[in-house]
Amino acid sequence: MATTKPKAGQSVGVTGMEDLWNVWYSELHEHATGLTVKVNRLVESTQSEFQRIDIIENDFFGKILVLYGSLMAATNDNNVYNEMITHVPLFVHPKPKNVLIIGGGDCGALTEVLKHPEVKKCTMCEIDKKVVEVSNRHLPHLAKGVRDKRAKLVFMDGKEFIAKSKEKFDVIILDLSDPIGPAADLFQKPFHQKVYEALNPDGIMLAQSESPYFHKEAVKAMYKNVRSIFPIVEMYTAHMPIYPSSLWSFAFCSKKYHPLKHFNAKRYDRQKPKTRYYNQDIHTAAFALPEYVKALIK
Amino acid sequence: MATTKPKAGQSVGVTGMEDLWNVWYSELHEHATGLTVKVNRLVESTQSEFQRIDIIENDFFGKILVLYGSLMAATNDNNVYNEMITHVPLFVHPKPKNVLIIGGGDCGALTEVLKHPEVKKCTMCEIDKKVVEVSNRHLPHLAKGVRDKRAKLVFMDGKEFIAKSKEKFDVIILDLSDPIGPAADLFQKPFHQKVYEALNPDGIMLAQSESPYFHKEAVKAMYKNVRSIFPIVEMYTAHMPIYPSSLWSFAFCSKKYHPLKHFNAKRYDRQKPKTRYYNQDIHTAAFALPEYVKALIK
Repeated sequence: MATTKPKAGQSVGVTGMEDLWNVWYSELHEHATGLTVKVNRLVESTQSEFQRIDIIENDFFGKILVLYGSLMAATNDNNVYNEMITHVPLFVHPKPKNVLIIGGGDCGALTEVLKHPEVKKCTMCEIDKKVVEVSNRHLPHLAKGVRDKRAKLVFMDGKEFIAKSKEKFDVIILDLSDPIGPAADLFQKPFHQKVYEALNPDGIMLAQSESPYFHKEAVKAMYKNVRSIFPIVEMYTAHMPIYPSSLWSFAFCSKKYHPLKHFNAKRYDRQKPKTRYYNQDIHTAAFALPEYVKALIK
Repeated sequence: MATTKPKAGQSVGVTGMEDLWNVWYSELHEHATGLTVKVNRLVESTQSEFQRIDIIENDFFGKILVLYGSLMAATNDNNVYNEMITHVPLFVHPKPKNVLIIGGGDCGALTEVLKHPEVKKCTMCEIDKKVVEVSNRHLPHLAKGVRDKRAKLVFMDGKEFIAKSKEKFDVIILDLSDPIGPAADLFQKPFHQKVYEALNPDGIMLAQSESPYFHKEAVKAMYKNVRSIFPIVEMYTAHMPIYPSSLWSFAFCSKKYHPLKHFNAKRYDRQKPKTRYYNQDIHTAAFALPEYVKALIK
């Protein structure tokens, strides 16, 4: 067995000492349960103006982006979250020309949005430029959209952007981290109201809405908020392996279009974007909610 | 702070020493990732003729049944697995009079099967009587079916039972643990062939078929097997929070009935069994597979 100690940042696995030390990262819920991942290597660790940003390397998931302690995206997470937060509203809205993403620092949602030829412009407003830089460096498969001419990256607070912008959007995607941390205000009703006003008369707001298994109170509060603003609000879910409980929910909030009645099957058939998770059947199935989830948001 | 050391089996949480020691149980996949649960108390730990059996207590999940190291069922798992392995075939088969469960030691599947008035007899063949005893003691909400007159419990090897039985069944449910451990043979083609022969000409075999996210090779092998025997084979999935990756799959293997075309909506509407997860929408939605899962079993 080798006796050299690995240097900081060096892979533990190549030293021959892997049976002597292990580093495990666990993201816990209520100090009682969670996902645990073995950290082969801390690839990068930095502190931005807003939060701590880490890239950890794991045998199964590949590189994982961690923001203030929450697993956000990984090489091998099948891109579930980015596909589900984008293709669902974009295959419902008949003419999604002007799209806004608030948050979305890993640029995965941007990349998926720009798979739609209908989209003429996609603005991504992310508060933390450092997240984009770190993520693009280590998760480049998510960053293809950045080089698309239709992409416009703005680095500022989403609340400020919405308050100042005169533009109207067809689809606004709230690709935010969590109701705690830098995005806390963006989960509140006053912000949702501003988003409503920044949408065209047939616009759709799409927001990630936490885990209905673990974050029951946050989910209830959020649906109460958005239902008091939008005439059409439907929850859908997806299996996102690195998120708490792996069951993740999204709020489809719409002024006019219904997520199932107005699903554009013809356009989907014609375009069939290359995906790992999303497809036509999943689009519909995602809106079927388990009994305990229906009870939570009824 | 108290200085008395807790005795074996005593809750760590009540000693005042909980900030000095923690016990965590992690069920890992490929030594790289997994679910971790805090063990407040090891409620019971025993060794049967076949396997190690533990009951651990956790703040979030309640009591958890652990068989040879795998989390199997818990007070607060929303009963997802038991509902999905039973109601799906039972609302498809038009007259499920005679049902056989192989495995199913916690009796949760038995309890769900017997919610159907069409069922005249449900035999549960479990190899390990000790699992039934331990589980019934600590997870009594799963055990209601045991006291039903229509329930018949047999303690023997499922392979032996199928080989000797002259009975024909309408639905056979393979509620087995994993392809490793005491149930290994029951995941193989020769056994599936015997199950086919023990079914009536319009019978359905339902088998849990592991995680399509973590157990890719096992899933592929199993679908190859059952497709070479049954004319109709369809996979469906459910979100089971304590199982590896939380995405769990089931193989619907049928001689005649299709799981969606022959779903008996009228009977569901009339009976509406009290469930935490399953409902009519979930029945259909569960068969919609993500792109990466379709690719896995194509």
